[in-house]
Amino acid sequence: MSDLPQTMFAVLQKYEGYSGKAEGPAIADASEYLEAAEIPVPTPGPGQVLLKLRVASVNPSDLHFIKGEYGQPRIKGNPAGFEGCGDIVATGAGAEKLMGQRVSFAVALGCSGAWADYAITDAMNCIPLRPDVSDDDGAAQIVNPLTAMAMVDIAQQDGDAFVVSAATSQLGKLMVSLGKDLGLKPIALVRREDAVGPLKEMGAAEVLVTTDPDVVKKFAAVSADLKPRVFLDAVSDQMSEQLFAAMPNRARWISYGKLSNELPKLTQMGQLIFQSKKIEGFWLTSWMRSTPPADQMRVIGEVQARFADGRWKTDVSAHLPLRDVVSGLAEALKKTDGKVMITP
Amino acid sequence: MSDLPQTMFAVLQKYEGYSGKAEGPAIADASEYLEAAEIPVPTPGPGQVLLKLRVASVNPSDLHFIKGEYGQPRIKGNPAGFEGCGDIVATGAGAEKLMGQRVSFAVALGCSGAWADYAITDAMNCIPLRPDVSDDDGAAQIVNPLTAMAMVDIAQQDGDAFVVSAATSQLGKLMVSLGKDLGLKPIALVRREDAVGPLKEMGAAEVLVTTDPDVVKKFAAVSADLKPRVFLDAVSDQMSEQLFAAMPNRARWISYGKLSNELPKLTQMGQLIFQSKKIEGFWLTSWMRSTPPADQMRVIGEVQARFADGRWKTDVSAHLPLRDVVSGLAEALKKTDGKVMITP
Repeated sequence: MSDLPQTMFAVLQKYEGYSGKAEGPAIADASEYLEAAEIPVPTPGPGQVLLKLRVASVNPSDLHFIKGEYGQPRIKGNPAGFEGCGDIVATGAGAEKLMGQRVSFAVALGCSGAWADYAITDAMNCIPLRPDVSDDDGAAQIVNPLTAMAMVDIAQQDGDAFVVSAATSQLGKLMVSLGKDLGLKPIALVRREDAVGPLKEMGAAEVLVTTDPDVVKKFAAVSADLKPRVFLDAVSDQMSEQLFAAMPNRARWISYGKLSNELPKLTQMGQLIFQSKKIEGFWLTSWMRSTPPADQMRVIGEVQARFADGRWKTDVSAHLPLRDVVSGLAEALKKTDGKVMITP
Repeated sequence: MSDLPQTMFAVLQKYEGYSGKAEGPAIADASEYLEAAEIPVPTPGPGQVLLKLRVASVNPSDLHFIKGEYGQPRIKGNPAGFEGCGDIVATGAGAEKLMGQRVSFAVALGCSGAWADYAITDAMNCIPLRPDVSDDDGAAQIVNPLTAMAMVDIAQQDGDAFVVSAATSQLGKLMVSLGKDLGLKPIALVRREDAVGPLKEMGAAEVLVTTDPDVVKKFAAVSADLKPRVFLDAVSDQMSEQLFAAMPNRARWISYGKLSNELPKLTQMGQLIFQSKKIEGFWLTSWMRSTPPADQMRVIGEVQARFADGRWKTDVSAHLPLRDVVSGLAEALKKTDGKVMITP
């Protein structure tokens, strides 16, 4: 590690633990939650690696986390950021084989985050990248793609049609195209009429616009026809509840995000009783804990193959320099046509 | 069938199908939904029996049903009533062995209901009664006891503590005493302070009063201590949601009734995601469809043994003559210390 600097630039969490709020991922000013600092470059422990950052992605889960609304407590003074692409420049005992490799990585819970010149994680959270996968794709290859794979797998066990909200999000698009490739019938929910065409091209069997005053009626007709049993929902608002109520017997409303801060009322409790409907959640961390490593590796290999051959790609709305994250993140997030990527 | 009358007195459903409302079981005037009539005595088909009524019970599910808020559509002109005790006075082909027996019965869905001088059901919905089981106990031996058995069984699969709302109801008391007998720790929710003592005697590990302004805080402490994973809920209101939110990881809110007409808001969607909590329902009909007959028979035998030896008994608040049901049911239901029983 002799050629590594002593200190590095990093974007740190300002607060500890949970906020106790449930506002959703929107941020007006990143400096409310984050601050820039020069801190010591961390040293990898046994089984760990040190990564020199190439690109870090900004996921909704990152925003939930820095706001203290995620499933894990914040650690004050730790760099933010769950996921990225980087080069392994130092290794702890047992991780030597990875030295020098370009990898996708997710940070280990409680470890130093990705929004820094250097980051630490467990060797098992690194996926060596094929040369034909770009840094941008490599920086968004874990959280969203694995979530998409895992959730579509859940949907597939309950039939061929499934519902995806916020379908223009990176994750939504991955699920629609994956569903199509598997011969399933994704029903996409979007907010804007102009998203209908592109999602149909991507493979959605139906696309419904949630701002259409007749959307519930139209969805009920689609639902009666295609019989979706699984609703993969990133929004989790009253509209979600209304659409769930229009789904058939045994439907499952699986929330994996809370883009809206509206608190949905359960207007049809009787459907849980008489129609065996269920409301539940999905969290990638829980999925990884409960899914055998061999199954995870199979899914990871399939994800990378999809990025390498162009079936999947990461739409990037902006590249934001790491040193501009605190001042510029809120503004960069205003463009909703792709993902914000952080570069050193 | 030569000694049977041609016609009988019956209390009929006035409406068809569903009301589209979700008001809960309270009724101000039974004549809004029911009317008395003299109708032909029905004839049992193959596999069916004709029962001469001894006692019919009034369950919350009967009230949901006559209001059009149940999981099955009403049939206009059919007698109401799901459950009773009677003598088999005629049999269809294949059911001859039951002739003359005193039985507990549940009506088959779509069949002629129990609130009539005579009722029809499937032979398999009849349970011959031991002489040491009273008519009153026999008339309330299917819906509530099987529900109690099935739900406590679900709870037991997830640990030793579980939560029961409306614990002073007949079903609530069955679940508390069953839980105690099985060595479990029932946590009972009641509305009135004076119910605390009797429920503790019955076997509740803890009893909490939902009208206590500190109930959520007190429940959170009990929950942190006993770690209940299952909430068997007949009320399904905002208080239910708050208590569910105070339960630990992997908790399941299982609604089996909607005594309140308040629509609960989901204030902690993130718990579904990050804590693997679930919201679902329980309906005896679904349980019977999905549970092998041998398991059902074992449960039914155990239920009858409990009534015969006095471990369980049916608290009766009033005996209401069948001919007074339309005019007197709403008034009779005002007493909440037991079940209303209808007699011919």
